[in-house]
Amino acid sequence: MRVFQIQDDWGMEHLQMSTRPDPRPGPGQVLLRIKAASLNYRDLVVPNRGYGAFTGVLPLIPVSDGVGEVLELGPGVSRVAVGDRVCPCFHQGWIAGAPDLERLTRTLGGPVDGMMADMVCLPEEGMVKVPGHLSDEEAATLPCAALTAWSAIVSHDALGPGSRVLVQGTGGVAIFALQFAKLLGAHVTVISSSDAKLERAEALGADAGINYTTTPEWAKPARALTAGRGFDHIVELGGAKTLPQSLRCIRPGGTLSMIGVLSGSTLAAPLGLVVTRLVRLQGITVGSRDAFEAMLRAIDQHRLQPVVDRVFAFDELKEAMAYLKSGAHFGKVCIRH
Amino acid sequence: MRVFQIQDDWGMEHLQMSTRPDPRPGPGQVLLRIKAASLNYRDLVVPNRGYGAFTGVLPLIPVSDGVGEVLELGPGVSRVAVGDRVCPCFHQGWIAGAPDLERLTRTLGGPVDGMMADMVCLPEEGMVKVPGHLSDEEAATLPCAALTAWSAIVSHDALGPGSRVLVQGTGGVAIFALQFAKLLGAHVTVISSSDAKLERAEALGADAGINYTTTPEWAKPARALTAGRGFDHIVELGGAKTLPQSLRCIRPGGTLSMIGVLSGSTLAAPLGLVVTRLVRLQGITVGSRDAFEAMLRAIDQHRLQPVVDRVFAFDELKEAMAYLKSGAHFGKVCIRH
Amino acid sequence: MRVFQIQDDWGMEHLQMSTRPDPRPGPGQVLLRIKAASLNYRDLVVPNRGYGAFTGVLPLIPVSDGVGEVLELGPGVSRVAVGDRVCPCFHQGWIAGAPDLERLTRTLGGPVDGMMADMVCLPEEGMVKVPGHLSDEEAATLPCAALTAWSAIVSHDALGPGSRVLVQGTGGVAIFALQFAKLLGAHVTVISSSDAKLERAEALGADAGINYTTTPEWAKPARALTAGRGFDHIVELGGAKTLPQSLRCIRPGGTLSMIGVLSGSTLAAPLGLVVTRLVRLQGITVGSRDAFEAMLRAIDQHRLQPVVDRVFAFDELKEAMAYLKSGAHFGKVCIRH
Amino acid sequence: MRVFQIQDDWGMEHLQMSTRPDPRPGPGQVLLRIKAASLNYRDLVVPNRGYGAFTGVLPLIPVSDGVGEVLELGPGVSRVAVGDRVCPCFHQGWIAGAPDLERLTRTLGGPVDGMMADMVCLPEEGMVKVPGHLSDEEAATLPCAALTAWSAIVSHDALGPGSRVLVQGTGGVAIFALQFAKLLGAHVTVISSSDAKLERAEALGADAGINYTTTPEWAKPARALTAGRGFDHIVELGGAKTLPQSLRCIRPGGTLSMIGVLSGSTLAAPLGLVVTRLVRLQGITVGSRDAFEAMLRAIDQHRLQPVVDRVFAFDELKEAMAYLKSGAHFGKVCIRH
Repeated sequence: MRVFQIQDDWGMEHLQMSTRPDPRPGPGQVLLRIKAASLNYRDLVVPNRGYGAFTGVLPLIPVSDGVGEVLELGPGVSRVAVGDRVCPCFHQGWIAGAPDLERLTRTLGGPVDGMMADMVCLPEEGMVKVPGHLSDEEAATLPCAALTAWSAIVSHDALGPGSRVLVQGTGGVAIFALQFAKLLGAHVTVISSSDAKLERAEALGADAGINYTTTPEWAKPARALTAGRGFDHIVELGGAKTLPQSLRCIRPGGTLSMIGVLSGSTLAAPLGLVVTRLVRLQGITVGSRDAFEAMLRAIDQHRLQPVVDRVFAFDELKEAMAYLKSGAHFGKVCIRH
Repeated sequence: MRVFQIQDDWGMEHLQMSTRPDPRPGPGQVLLRIKAASLNYRDLVVPNRGYGAFTGVLPLIPVSDGVGEVLELGPGVSRVAVGDRVCPCFHQGWIAGAPDLERLTRTLGGPVDGMMADMVCLPEEGMVKVPGHLSDEEAATLPCAALTAWSAIVSHDALGPGSRVLVQGTGGVAIFALQFAKLLGAHVTVISSSDAKLERAEALGADAGINYTTTPEWAKPARALTAGRGFDHIVELGGAKTLPQSLRCIRPGGTLSMIGVLSGSTLAAPLGLVVTRLVRLQGITVGSRDAFEAMLRAIDQHRLQPVVDRVFAFDELKEAMAYLKSGAHFGKVCIRH
Repeated sequence: MRVFQIQDDWGMEHLQMSTRPDPRPGPGQVLLRIKAASLNYRDLVVPNRGYGAFTGVLPLIPVSDGVGEVLELGPGVSRVAVGDRVCPCFHQGWIAGAPDLERLTRTLGGPVDGMMADMVCLPEEGMVKVPGHLSDEEAATLPCAALTAWSAIVSHDALGPGSRVLVQGTGGVAIFALQFAKLLGAHVTVISSSDAKLERAEALGADAGINYTTTPEWAKPARALTAGRGFDHIVELGGAKTLPQSLRCIRPGGTLSMIGVLSGSTLAAPLGLVVTRLVRLQGITVGSRDAFEAMLRAIDQHRLQPVVDRVFAFDELKEAMAYLKSGAHFGKVCIRH
Repeated sequence: MRVFQIQDDWGMEHLQMSTRPDPRPGPGQVLLRIKAASLNYRDLVVPNRGYGAFTGVLPLIPVSDGVGEVLELGPGVSRVAVGDRVCPCFHQGWIAGAPDLERLTRTLGGPVDGMMADMVCLPEEGMVKVPGHLSDEEAATLPCAALTAWSAIVSHDALGPGSRVLVQGTGGVAIFALQFAKLLGAHVTVISSSDAKLERAEALGADAGINYTTTPEWAKPARALTAGRGFDHIVELGGAKTLPQSLRCIRPGGTLSMIGVLSGSTLAAPLGLVVTRLVRLQGITVGSRDAFEAMLRAIDQHRLQPVVDRVFAFDELKEAMAYLKSGAHFGKVCIRH
């Protein structure tokens, strides 16, 4: 079967197409024909061994997120059936409950082989069935980007109608955060460097938009959108540049979801504002299978459509990665197998 | 000024129109001209001293819920201004935090005089400003019925998109519960004795309806609407008749909001189902001023319209009460002052 | 190997000693030599098929709780090692997360074969290692009784120093509830029919005791122990008789843990008190493996000793059951294999 | 009456003894004779106008924390009686509920006049009665230091028996955090620069101690004390130096309480660890009156003794401040009026 893998040595230049023998499902395993994948910023970090020893060993098949059709069941499998369409879970070992080191370690796209293969074998415990209204590309966007947004907006906070949410940017996680925050009735403000992207965000339901290029001190107008109370929740995706502004418009007792789009970067903020306003900074990284299934019930009920920006062919992985890196996208960048 | 009061003795026959001197605001107090009131089942219980010593002493002005315009401020008042339109809080002493006996005692419409008067004087701490898009009658429906539904659906549970909620009936609390559950993205099933009312509930957003007269064993078809998982939350308004059915379609770990429409009735249920399914039965009674203000932010953001079934004149209070008692209403029964 | 099983037909008279071939561990399974078991009220219900179809099929080995030593590992087992001392989990399928019907069904001692056997084979996922300071009999008391008490006191409430807790009786769950509530710093009142048992409870840390035989209206003196605020939490083990009293001394917003010692009994209470005091009635049934492991960390840290009332020999199961039924015990009744 | 006040200009050199006319209680106010005060790091920041416009205006009476006896009641006061011993609340406007800007602004010791006066007049809503077993100096330590520790350990987390807590240092907040964490059954590790202080911490119940001067890379041995799981909660008092170490020994999903001992300092940390381990950084600043009263119930029940390091006379305020600044103390530095 076709694979893309990092081989011989680390580095983007060592990521290339190759072949491997078709895998066979062992006891409790499921063989999937991968139909589509989607890219996350993490996938740009892995080829350079950006997570150190946690990145895995070579050769390594990259890309965490995808969707596949069940081709064959290993002995004893009962959770899925041949023909089901499923997404593998990013954290293969985190079924439910609080995270611990063991539950957080076996992640797809490094150290466990990822989605850039025609077929994949995984334990039946590590996958979820996807709603029928989604295209393969749409379904492929869910495992990391959607679930990270869901964890930030739903699992780690208690938002609802009347809540004020601010989302930074219009990348994959940001757009899902916008969509989920609207589903639960919140008022959502988006900041972006592009008026065109803000318009698209408003078409998806955003109640307000601020261009942070033309309004670099965006905290003040943003706060004005909350009747002076401040935001209940800010999805912090901008890293060191945005945090000081966020602290100026979060409400006392509010939550900043810290999401690691830029691995290796530093969290830096005036401690005084964090303390005197009782701000909560909550690190967020994907979520459990239970959370994934709760999210899918919401997506299914509301027939929610993930935003697919552009679809590349399997052999265009590097072009897709370069496109993601450029920041030109709005929503998700996908791969068609 | 005009008042309706229970005088001389307890009993509905002792409820009559009368006059009292116009009240004057003392320090920290606010004089309101009442514009409209709305009825709750509680208002039918009070004239018969149905809450025992907690009902208050005679003469007593009944009816808990209303809206007024600020006429005059007593010394030191700063939370409201003349001309503001405000709702008095049912629990005059419950500003925020967990309930305690002291916070729960000073309730309007008994033992504290209620809304059936042209003017009312209350402490500035015990009122909230209401959104401009609401008519007086709509605003008058909020203090008990809407806030009880909000407390059940929002404050005491963690519902959201993908949650399954069942609401019993189409009275005041029920319709608000339906509306709030839809605002936060839940899937809502309504049960009613009337197909016509079910149609109206669906027009307000209900996803499904079941006629419990034609389908007395409604638990089974209701459960089928949840893909077999059971409901996350049931707003239990039907008393002894509905509880056994509710326990058959609640999910393990789910919540039943127990709301006291029928004072004096008995909670009775098979203990086995409560225990083995880890069901939570949560008593609900209105809420704090903080909760009221959170609810108003949601109502304001979504321009939510309370459902006013019928408006009676001030001197038609008894007719309004009889109409409420008949159960013919859908939503709220109001009084125009 | 020796077993006790219900065979031929349901009914206590069909519970008898017998033999079965020694079991062998399959893939993912662990073979245990059972060292001790302990009895719960549930074990008296099972022989009479008291849980209907959920009770299981004949022949059935009863008794849910026990402790064993790992004798042999099936292929692929990694969570435990030969020689480890482990307790099987009552809910074999509830590892973590919220309960659902699937997680709640596979319970030991019916429908899954229980502990009255010399050896047992179970999946490695369904067991936990026990602290070294516990005797076998002490360890055998943990799976249902201790974990039920932990779930009530710790998982389903937010108690701590300054909280007021009332525990009904001095049976297995009650004594664990007392011990855990003391570990977390609460003030604990115990009610019992026996002054001698109250003295023993006080020796274990109870701050106050009330004899409900000599003081049948115990709610009033109990409330006085809370400076009039009422109890934050009442562990409701007495069924229909105690609930009305409990509702008179719970604080507004407090929690009653409903624990099903008497299957088939009815929950009955005045709805008015539940509603107007915002009382929460929380059904409790054991807990997940995650909760079990959290409890074991507490037991280990504090070298907590479960209270073993009396130990019977393997072939004295029926005498042990009769003794449990008599209610003479204080703490747990155990079986030595 | 005697006062200490910052007058003429900001700066420690403008802090001096002076006199003011005795205050008189207006409506709803209470006149207190202050018996003792205690110092917090905040009190060293205020004289230099370290909180900018939030510090208040001159002349300003500093020091937030103290205890007084009720001398006289203004009209309408009912919450306290003459002779009661009470602590004023640091946040005069935060009675209960979630914090907001209004509730957080009126703080004692700046901008509102503080405790360095023989008498103080405050609204009856802004004070709590203190348990009888405490000396005046002990009671004076409670409003900021104890309540901050309580908020971190109890209000903002769900710790209990089996939880692992790490406390940094042995100052006022740290020692209360140690004491409260022990009350609720947690296992507590303390780090300090002094073996002598570690010994004293162990005498107060600390389960382990690490000297961070002799073991600058303390995260590794600290983690070993948690059986490798990491700490559930770290009371982060050391500022920029300690945070990177804390992130290496917190458990996934654990909480760091960020407490502002060093105003103006910067929060800086590797974002990657925060994100991938789902760490929560929770800003903590004192708490509401409801929280204060909950803490007092715990202190009263357990007869907990605050640790008073040294008591200075009223006119030795500057010496007391210099002593606090030196860091030589263990627990609290107090002033006797």
